[in-house]
Amino acid sequence: MIGEIIAIGDELISGRVVNTTSSFVASRLFSAGHTVRRITVIGDEPEIIKDALLDAIKRNQFVIISGGLGPTSDDITNESVSMALGLPLEKNHQIEKQIREMEEHLGETTPDQFRRKLTMLPQGARVLNPEGHAAGYELLYHDVHLFFLPGVPEQLREHLVKRVLPRLNDLDKDRPYVLQKVFKLFGLPEIEINTRLEEMGVSNSRVKLGYYPVFPEVHVSITVIEDSQEEAKRLLDYASSAIRNEFEHFIVAEDEQGSLAATLGELLKLKGYMLAAAESCTGGLLGGTLTSVAGSSEWFDRSMVTYSNRAKMELLGVSKATLAAHGAVSSQTALEMVTGARARSGCQAAIAITGIAGPGGGTPEKPVGTVYISISVDDNNLVHRFLFPGDRNEVRRLTVETALDWLRRYLKYGSLLPGYKPVH
Amino acid sequence: MIGEIIAIGDELISGRVVNTTSSFVASRLFSAGHTVRRITVIGDEPEIIKDALLDAIKRNQFVIISGGLGPTSDDITNESVSMALGLPLEKNHQIEKQIREMEEHLGETTPDQFRRKLTMLPQGARVLNPEGHAAGYELLYHDVHLFFLPGVPEQLREHLVKRVLPRLNDLDKDRPYVLQKVFKLFGLPEIEINTRLEEMGVSNSRVKLGYYPVFPEVHVSITVIEDSQEEAKRLLDYASSAIRNEFEHFIVAEDEQGSLAATLGELLKLKGYMLAAAESCTGGLLGGTLTSVAGSSEWFDRSMVTYSNRAKMELLGVSKATLAAHGAVSSQTALEMVTGARARSGCQAAIAITGIAGPGGGTPEKPVGTVYISISVDDNNLVHRFLFPGDRNEVRRLTVETALDWLRRYLKYGSLLPGYKPVH
Repeated sequence: MIGEIIAIGDELISGRVVNTTSSFVASRLFSAGHTVRRITVIGDEPEIIKDALLDAIKRNQFVIISGGLGPTSDDITNESVSMALGLPLEKNHQIEKQIREMEEHLGETTPDQFRRKLTMLPQGARVLNPEGHAAGYELLYHDVHLFFLPGVPEQLREHLVKRVLPRLNDLDKDRPYVLQKVFKLFGLPEIEINTRLEEMGVSNSRVKLGYYPVFPEVHVSITVIEDSQEEAKRLLDYASSAIRNEFEHFIVAEDEQGSLAATLGELLKLKGYMLAAAESCTGGLLGGTLTSVAGSSEWFDRSMVTYSNRAKMELLGVSKATLAAHGAVSSQTALEMVTGARARSGCQAAIAITGIAGPGGGTPEKPVGTVYISISVDDNNLVHRFLFPGDRNEVRRLTVETALDWLRRYLKYGSLLPGYKPVH
Repeated sequence: MIGEIIAIGDELISGRVVNTTSSFVASRLFSAGHTVRRITVIGDEPEIIKDALLDAIKRNQFVIISGGLGPTSDDITNESVSMALGLPLEKNHQIEKQIREMEEHLGETTPDQFRRKLTMLPQGARVLNPEGHAAGYELLYHDVHLFFLPGVPEQLREHLVKRVLPRLNDLDKDRPYVLQKVFKLFGLPEIEINTRLEEMGVSNSRVKLGYYPVFPEVHVSITVIEDSQEEAKRLLDYASSAIRNEFEHFIVAEDEQGSLAATLGELLKLKGYMLAAAESCTGGLLGGTLTSVAGSSEWFDRSMVTYSNRAKMELLGVSKATLAAHGAVSSQTALEMVTGARARSGCQAAIAITGIAGPGGGTPEKPVGTVYISISVDDNNLVHRFLFPGDRNEVRRLTVETALDWLRRYLKYGSLLPGYKPVH
């Protein structure tokens, strides 16, 4: 089915809040084989809502409208829809009942003006979730299926996945098979990835490639749309193998849910290694990134976030003499941090980071962005100096990614340094 | 001036990448007093680009179009614009020269197909940045100002701030004054904030309030648009005072750039306290959040991320007996973590966290989301058990926010616990 998404909210059109929910809706519809042609974001203004809705109805078989269904005074979607489509607002008894039950459950009462806003829906509205308490309804208007969903991300996601998608799939049984696969690369510029894949002739009329910088990675997606599921699978496998062969060292994860941290965790588990970290300028982000992976306790032991020099001495055994002679941001300090982290934790692998994330603290010899990363595995203690571009946030994220990728490469290929430019 | 934003890219319309750049453009335009009526997201398809562009030209004084200007094969904005507006593509000698200079600088040559894509612009295009190397141009079409910007976030932001905004401001000298202020609240539901502000009558025809859940906070914005700058300021100050009085304890930061971590840092600095942390289920996120604040070394000393039990014993001195009798997720362990962190670091304040972030590890007595947070300041060692809702990521973020907010409240008001529900 062909459709559009309309997201309503002053917070979205004024740019205060990033519109993540429409991306979620678009990606789920796309994966299910439906086509989204436009996403339109507008504010809480009746006339503009009316225009956008009537435009979209002309062009589509379905429209998904989110936002403005809540009880607060800036929520005006129902009134606007009623006006735009000439459908009077009517009290919905299912929602009335849900609110009553919730009040009994919580022992609270809903003020009248909120109750009115929540229960009055345009004539013909079919509530999507008769058992639940979040609003959300379907309207059939001139053969176009209109789905009105709450803008609150969690509620919208639940409605979309559990109610809207099954309904659309039911309405459109002849849709083609869509297969998509994502590779996450780190260490190569987008333009080089594109050039090499073009030269290889991987993309053609049936295999579509997309390139998306998702800092600090570049994601490459393969999309295949075919009538035959078998044929779609064959084409996808062929393109996947080509990409894997060409960019082997640079692929840090596969699939949307994959991540560099999870890939590294699998490698550590395979070797039976526990990992310890010692962080300075990243302040815990490395540990935070590693432990975003469920089950990371199987391969991650600890991180010593030593922001002060004293902490570096006490927790890692960095010597006062080293700090005095070379400074906290130096290869010598990084090495003492990594050996200290490994020896004191008893882990089989360790990562240490010390650098200048900015905006202050840079010198001509060690400008902002200078970071020493050190890894200790097997009998090797390695250290490299990097110069990362960007602001504080970007320097820290590049540092974490580079450190994890370096250890990933070490465990997988031996001592291969990541493919960007260390200073010396 | 009244305008719209069009963002072009298959990665956006398929939902693979969240459209953060349009939000950035919208917020900067809004703050400068310009009006954005729609943000339209479309894919890299000539016919759809044509329709969206012609629609927008009819309705507006300016349109900002981003994406599809790059050299890779999926970038087709220039060709589509040429077709839509009937303007032939012509070689731009400024860009040609820039590419030549860059090649000399880098000692690399640009393949011909990339050079062609980058240099052929629609007739009448005025390059926005004659000195730089990123594409971006203005076209005047039927009195509508069309700005074409690269979709890469950093390049787009630079073009917008340095070139497009000054140009729009120049074209529209009579625009009204827009003042906006944001309060970031934690610990109260959006509906309660709305109800209380409605009852107080803070919003009216001249003072507009917006409510935006930005997990785990609720942001409240005040917007005032007036012809007189002085009057705008008076109205904004009045509304700001009202909000500050009503929600004092719950305001964790003011203004877009403010954050709970920065607020806490200011309070610690004021007292001359250094902070240490001991983290388990948050894995370093607390330290990472604190050190996202530039200059945090003035008040943050270290975080001991003790993911394993052994690390808790070695780095914090948690006793084996406590872990055996009560488990790692217990008030006893949290207290030993916090006192260990404080004693061993010599800091004047400490935070400790131990909990079950999920998805595994829950039990009937301690379900997923159970987190013990402990703070140690002055002569007090406090611990509370919390039960946080949500997935692994949400539990961890709620834990960090709650821990920081508790210490903020302690330093500011005494022993006031944050306004959500600890279990006992």
